[in-house]
Amino acid sequence: MSSKKYKIQDDLGLGLQPVVKNQRVINRDGSSNIRRTGTPFFRTADTYNALITMSWSAFNLLVFSAYLLINVLFALVYLALGIENLDGIRPGHSAFMHFMDAFFFSAQTISTVGYGHISPAGITTSFVAALECLIGLLSFALATGLLYGRFSRPSAKIRYSKNIIVAPYWDITGLMFRLANYRSNQLIELEVSIMLTYNATVDGKVIRQFVPLELERNRISLLTLSWTVVHPITEDSPLKTMGPDFLKTSKAEFIVMLKAFDDSFSQTVHSRTSYKDEELVWGAQFISAISLDEMGVNVLDLTKIDALQKVSLPAG
Amino acid sequence: MSSKKYKIQDDLGLGLQPVVKNQRVINRDGSSNIRRTGTPFFRTADTYNALITMSWSAFNLLVFSAYLLINVLFALVYLALGIENLDGIRPGHSAFMHFMDAFFFSAQTISTVGYGHISPAGITTSFVAALECLIGLLSFALATGLLYGRFSRPSAKIRYSKNIIVAPYWDITGLMFRLANYRSNQLIELEVSIMLTYNATVDGKVIRQFVPLELERNRISLLTLSWTVVHPITEDSPLKTMGPDFLKTSKAEFIVMLKAFDDSFSQTVHSRTSYKDEELVWGAQFISAISLDEMGVNVLDLTKIDALQKVSLPAG
Amino acid sequence: MSSKKYKIQDDLGLGLQPVVKNQRVINRDGSSNIRRTGTPFFRTADTYNALITMSWSAFNLLVFSAYLLINVLFALVYLALGIENLDGIRPGHSAFMHFMDAFFFSAQTISTVGYGHISPAGITTSFVAALECLIGLLSFALATGLLYGRFSRPSAKIRYSKNIIVAPYWDITGLMFRLANYRSNQLIELEVSIMLTYNATVDGKVIRQFVPLELERNRISLLTLSWTVVHPITEDSPLKTMGPDFLKTSKAEFIVMLKAFDDSFSQTVHSRTSYKDEELVWGAQFISAISLDEMGVNVLDLTKIDALQKVSLPAG
Amino acid sequence: MSSKKYKIQDDLGLGLQPVVKNQRVINRDGSSNIRRTGTPFFRTADTYNALITMSWSAFNLLVFSAYLLINVLFALVYLALGIENLDGIRPGHSAFMHFMDAFFFSAQTISTVGYGHISPAGITTSFVAALECLIGLLSFALATGLLYGRFSRPSAKIRYSKNIIVAPYWDITGLMFRLANYRSNQLIELEVSIMLTYNATVDGKVIRQFVPLELERNRISLLTLSWTVVHPITEDSPLKTMGPDFLKTSKAEFIVMLKAFDDSFSQTVHSRTSYKDEELVWGAQFISAISLDEMGVNVLDLTKIDALQKVSLPAG
Repeated sequence: MSSKKYKIQDDLGLGLQPVVKNQRVINRDGSSNIRRTGTPFFRTADTYNALITMSWSAFNLLVFSAYLLINVLFALVYLALGIENLDGIRPGHSAFMHFMDAFFFSAQTISTVGYGHISPAGITTSFVAALECLIGLLSFALATGLLYGRFSRPSAKIRYSKNIIVAPYWDITGLMFRLANYRSNQLIELEVSIMLTYNATVDGKVIRQFVPLELERNRISLLTLSWTVVHPITEDSPLKTMGPDFLKTSKAEFIVMLKAFDDSFSQTVHSRTSYKDEELVWGAQFISAISLDEMGVNVLDLTKIDALQKVSLPAG
Repeated sequence: MSSKKYKIQDDLGLGLQPVVKNQRVINRDGSSNIRRTGTPFFRTADTYNALITMSWSAFNLLVFSAYLLINVLFALVYLALGIENLDGIRPGHSAFMHFMDAFFFSAQTISTVGYGHISPAGITTSFVAALECLIGLLSFALATGLLYGRFSRPSAKIRYSKNIIVAPYWDITGLMFRLANYRSNQLIELEVSIMLTYNATVDGKVIRQFVPLELERNRISLLTLSWTVVHPITEDSPLKTMGPDFLKTSKAEFIVMLKAFDDSFSQTVHSRTSYKDEELVWGAQFISAISLDEMGVNVLDLTKIDALQKVSLPAG
Repeated sequence: MSSKKYKIQDDLGLGLQPVVKNQRVINRDGSSNIRRTGTPFFRTADTYNALITMSWSAFNLLVFSAYLLINVLFALVYLALGIENLDGIRPGHSAFMHFMDAFFFSAQTISTVGYGHISPAGITTSFVAALECLIGLLSFALATGLLYGRFSRPSAKIRYSKNIIVAPYWDITGLMFRLANYRSNQLIELEVSIMLTYNATVDGKVIRQFVPLELERNRISLLTLSWTVVHPITEDSPLKTMGPDFLKTSKAEFIVMLKAFDDSFSQTVHSRTSYKDEELVWGAQFISAISLDEMGVNVLDLTKIDALQKVSLPAG
Repeated sequence: MSSKKYKIQDDLGLGLQPVVKNQRVINRDGSSNIRRTGTPFFRTADTYNALITMSWSAFNLLVFSAYLLINVLFALVYLALGIENLDGIRPGHSAFMHFMDAFFFSAQTISTVGYGHISPAGITTSFVAALECLIGLLSFALATGLLYGRFSRPSAKIRYSKNIIVAPYWDITGLMFRLANYRSNQLIELEVSIMLTYNATVDGKVIRQFVPLELERNRISLLTLSWTVVHPITEDSPLKTMGPDFLKTSKAEFIVMLKAFDDSFSQTVHSRTSYKDEELVWGAQFISAISLDEMGVNVLDLTKIDALQKVSLPAG
């Protein structure tokens, strides 16, 4: 009895559960189609993660709201401690004006601007103000870290072609998609892999199969232009015997995994995407997105990454 | 005489000392069961490490206490230099009120809020205040770095199953444990290894043995669901001839080492744990922690990672 | 039909487009000679990249201008809200002086210095001032991150010799260039490769060829002195049959790619450069840039990295 | 003519220059014994490097001196612009007191504490003050980055034994040294190599030879205790035929290179050291630095890393 027998082939760690509806295993943005329960509601690392990855408008709104809210809370505390403990507030004001004065005193304290035309008196109010300074300084220390984290987070922003196609390739056909770097940073040492996954019936049970597809080339040194990734459909290819119908009924999906080194941030970055059978076009070829300008310089037009034209395939 | 003869097999660097009491070699949280003496009392890197890894409540308490303490110290300095050098302090106060005034002036200075209703006069007091500003700014610069370090520290938070089990596996049995990602960040390119370690008598001397256990698979591309790591107990397995009694008397321990790439922070992370013989359950199997919701999406319930049920094992 | 047939040799990802004018494929500073269109005008990561990589004088000018501009804008807002809402402004001033007062109030607010001799009154003006504090704090949080990013960005600054030469080498000749570390940080585990690229006519079509050149050694452990990288022109070398004329007419270019580990920043760094045929000198050798001082210490003179002398080559 | 012939064996990149005096190739702290000239006097990255790696006392002194200096400079500017433009300065003071007032105003401005009992008047003075705020904020932004850089810089602090020894080893002898982690952070996946380098006469010319020494084991998974690195002096070892006299006259040096992953900072770290012949002890063995406490826990005493005792060696 050999221990080889119990070796499992690569299934990416996605398990053998078949796809029952038409959902994706990997979403187009590279995230997994999984829900998790049983995690605690609040965790520091996840909060940081959320604050780092949320959109700029949401982040700015959150910072502004938090600033308003904390000043409202402190204003209420100062009012409760007695408005007479804030020197410089004009007497005889309405309750609303007193609240606004306390609010602005709070804002001047938490931001450490401290003009001083309003200043705290009495031990309790002075102590609350001293505490508010501390909270303000720590909050902005936090904001500094968050802003740095938001800006410096390395992540490949890869523009994948909308479709994966079966195109003529030398004397046979090939499965192809195209990708380009959507950012101006330099990506080097790129490695890409394609995994075909589909439902198959094994011993009367429907399980999910995972088959790696061999590529014409799986790494390049520099991604300066676009890269057309090609799986030649040779006799050895699992696609040789699979037609569009089979891929549809077996809920096939092509999972693309890319790894690169971001030369600007000196860090390794990863990107994933997937193509479902409805994004697969049989009998098409990509129209070049690269042209030559009058100086002899190659020009890459990122808007043309998706451009296709229909062609007939050689008889397989 | 071959130089091969002097090659040592992997013992993880933990040495050959036998385990004499029932202590662990590796603790469940992955730390080592080692004490170190002869290190200097204070070292910068260790201090930073401690400030980064302490709990949030301890960190906040420390910051608050340091803020109080430093203001008390500066208040005493200002009192010693003469309360008359602080313009704006109301005369005729009690000594306690003078201390409080000096304390609040210190807080307003170190936080750079500087309302100005109290201000320094005289060269010495002004100089101390100028120095306190500098200390304040550097302290909050430090706090900024610490907060960023606390938040952005990459570390895998892996939820390992409470038990390691011997379960039916195809036509034989297998040693298994389960793990899942406790955080919402994406872990990719995971590699895991299990090392069995136990006391053995070699040439009449008790030494610690280390044997790597071959796995069904030792790497997955994505950890989106849970991962059941399996060592098939084949004829080649050292566990084939070891029963529960042997593992107990030889103070056996299974050391688990995991390596992954954290896609959110773009950094390699490591995690370790261990299972002692009392955490090993013979004849059990894991109850699935994954279910399918009405949308066809896989749902992972992290509270079920430990769920077991007793089963009988096939006759070995 | 073998799948081997469809494997592509390494072309660095630069494509097969021939070089039509005399432009470089890789510029001397390592960037690619590519233009990209179709990208959005503004993107966060690119902006960060630009702010991190711009020169210090441009960066300082930008910060100073932004500070002036934002204070001018807020001054106009305060004027629009009514100068009488800024307490402490001397009445009867000219419109220009009122603008200047509002400008300085703005500067004192955004920097949180807040002397308080001018202070906001009225709800709207106070609110704008509170908002300006927030903007100021966030801006300087951003500046902190940018300054840290600018300083700590790891990048190899490699000083490549101006020329690549064909020099006598043992009993044959070798293609050589020299490099040294221009910074004082320690580079270790260096790997270098040279790729020769030129226009060739294949099946009547001009395409770009890429041929890796085998090196005498392609890695060193430490870069403390200069490193003369040598491709021995053996019988196996593609250069054996190419003379200066062929390299010129085929628009040849030698692409150099270097990878190293920066021991000071603990990060992997990459560097690229290229040599065109006009930078290739046939029949020269490098003059040593290393001398021995009176203490027996090796001294590397970085100004001599380019130093050449003409020699005659052995008959090939 | 084979291209193999021109392959160079690893010399670490240190070149073939012989050691003429008794200087080291690699210093004990891992730096190289090289001087560099021809570099520009000031470079940003090197400045950052220096500020990050200088001692804490030097760093604090530098910050304090810079704070004094910049305030003296701005005080002189405020005096030159006319002390009457600083509102709140008491008239009739001496020139020295005016300087001190300007100095403290500058300190209150650059730190943004801005009490306001002294405030700027007039356009020029107000503008200088606004500029000083900006400089202050940027300076402290810089200090924040530097403090973070100083604290978070990953670097292995390895404690190497003072001596390298030739000790009995099984039935032969072995070259050994010991190392331990001097910090409390966890080092994993350690790799070590030893290179022997000495002067040798080849074809009548003295050049420097580099010979890697094969190790009993060159990697461990965890460095929790001390690690005794052993090169068994087998028949294959270059040391088999070299005695203490040869090592002395040939100016031999053992260069140690260590690589590890710092689990606390999630970064790869490197460490180097070297042993000269005068640090080599023939006929000694290390006294164990590890003991067992009453709880059965291993205790590593870092003060005993150097502890040796003389022994006689087996006849070679």
